[in-house]
Amino acid sequence: MAVLALDVGGTKLAAALVDEAGTILRQARVGTPADPWPACLDLLQQVQGDAGVEGVGAGCGGPMAWPAGRVSPLNMASWQDFPLRERLRERWPGVPVRVHNDAVCAAAGEHWLGVGRGVDDLLGMVVSTGVGGGLVLGGRLHDGPSGNAGHIGHVVVEPDGPRCGCGGRGCLEAVARGPAVVAWAAERGCTAHDGRELAELAGAGDAVARAALARAGTAVGRAAASVAALLDLRLVVVGGGLSLSGAALWGPLEQAFHDQARLGFLTGAAVVPAFLGADTGLLGAAALVLQGDRYWSAA
Amino acid sequence: MAVLALDVGGTKLAAALVDEAGTILRQARVGTPADPWPACLDLLQQVQGDAGVEGVGAGCGGPMAWPAGRVSPLNMASWQDFPLRERLRERWPGVPVRVHNDAVCAAAGEHWLGVGRGVDDLLGMVVSTGVGGGLVLGGRLHDGPSGNAGHIGHVVVEPDGPRCGCGGRGCLEAVARGPAVVAWAAERGCTAHDGRELAELAGAGDAVARAALARAGTAVGRAAASVAALLDLRLVVVGGGLSLSGAALWGPLEQAFHDQARLGFLTGAAVVPAFLGADTGLLGAAALVLQGDRYWSAA
Repeated sequence: MAVLALDVGGTKLAAALVDEAGTILRQARVGTPADPWPACLDLLQQVQGDAGVEGVGAGCGGPMAWPAGRVSPLNMASWQDFPLRERLRERWPGVPVRVHNDAVCAAAGEHWLGVGRGVDDLLGMVVSTGVGGGLVLGGRLHDGPSGNAGHIGHVVVEPDGPRCGCGGRGCLEAVARGPAVVAWAAERGCTAHDGRELAELAGAGDAVARAALARAGTAVGRAAASVAALLDLRLVVVGGGLSLSGAALWGPLEQAFHDQARLGFLTGAAVVPAFLGADTGLLGAAALVLQGDRYWSAA
Repeated sequence: MAVLALDVGGTKLAAALVDEAGTILRQARVGTPADPWPACLDLLQQVQGDAGVEGVGAGCGGPMAWPAGRVSPLNMASWQDFPLRERLRERWPGVPVRVHNDAVCAAAGEHWLGVGRGVDDLLGMVVSTGVGGGLVLGGRLHDGPSGNAGHIGHVVVEPDGPRCGCGGRGCLEAVARGPAVVAWAAERGCTAHDGRELAELAGAGDAVARAALARAGTAVGRAAASVAALLDLRLVVVGGGLSLSGAALWGPLEQAFHDQARLGFLTGAAVVPAFLGADTGLLGAAALVLQGDRYWSAA
């Protein structure tokens, strides 16, 4: 059995043919064009080739109407209320077609094949252009009534902190999303243009870059500890572009987590980097259909 | 069918005979003595009279080993690792005996018969000597792997805030537990000795008492909004002694919640007072056994 997986992001599209063991048989990527649907179709047909497929799973940036799979990604102006699930169903009729939030897919991927393998309860976080997440509770993906469970990005970490795109203030996303971290550093004279440059400068000892990543790491660690206490978790997995920033991020992140996760039942709790790297989203999208109802609770 | 319910607190013990509709047929209360077990037995036998019972449910302050029901309530020095569930089983053999955290029971009570009736996903909070909570997800009590899910008291609300009993800093419990709120006001010259006096002073316009309750309410509202976003909730129920402090608490609490709960999927989300008052814990304890496995997932 093999399925098609699609990962739709604001800057890139990726598709893969994935077998039931989670092996990526073929994959393809492209920058996200202004009109993404023809490019999605192209990529999917390219990786399918003449293989038969028994389902299609897709991850896409939120928000979306779920489980209908009508998507309105924040950073894709041309897709507003786009019927992604319906379009995929029309093209691949007769097989399961499932669409979920990309950060939720990443959590599912890490649970299925990554560092969360065999762990019944975890939070998976993606710290990137935004900050998102997904929850596995009792061995199954927890969707929430509208499919929006996992929104760790809107846990308040700095009550008097910056305004957030959601309308609130001091949300984790407002503090720790890559562009916010870079902007915070730039205001203090740092020349980095993106998260990768910021991490390089921090690695070379730049004080402002280090302070910017420390602030973000502390916020991530604190939110992770709060959720671990709330949900009785022993594992939080952190992926996404900014999570690749090395010790300048991870030192303060782990410190904040362990300083805060002190209740007896949190003994042994850990916050760790995602394992599957750039493939997490694709494998999670595949998991929506390959793993029965473990990562899918809807019709 | 009727069951016995027991609610064990640091200052009072309560027991009731409860029928399957949730009617309290008989109840009794007493101040918590130094050696609580004989008093618990007395109360239970008193409310049982010559009625047959088909189960026993008990709520007790945490922490506890769950589902074993070995309890070590923070504010009851004489009960450390006390085998409450085992002792109840010995006295009432052959029927289900279930023990859970008292704040979890309160959440179950409000879901079964209170303001959460018919709502599939909610957070129930108890703001009292401590700050605890319980989660109903998908229509069922969510226990977490060690029975500790619902620990809203250790979500960080003031990163540079006061030390918490858990070893962390700025936890909701450290900021909003009744004694902390009274102490904060006392440091600023307020004469209130407990939460009730503080609420009375606030109601009479005392500025310090109002500021103390506003700070607590803001922290509760902010944490409630964070959890609503994380878990895709539309309802948070707040009970416990301090929740009876009126508009001086609830104004800032609601304001903080609505200022923060701004994501589209949170439209219509509400934070509301608990409905069942002092009976919540007893009814929740009864629900552990009266409602099949809706509020009990363990052996």
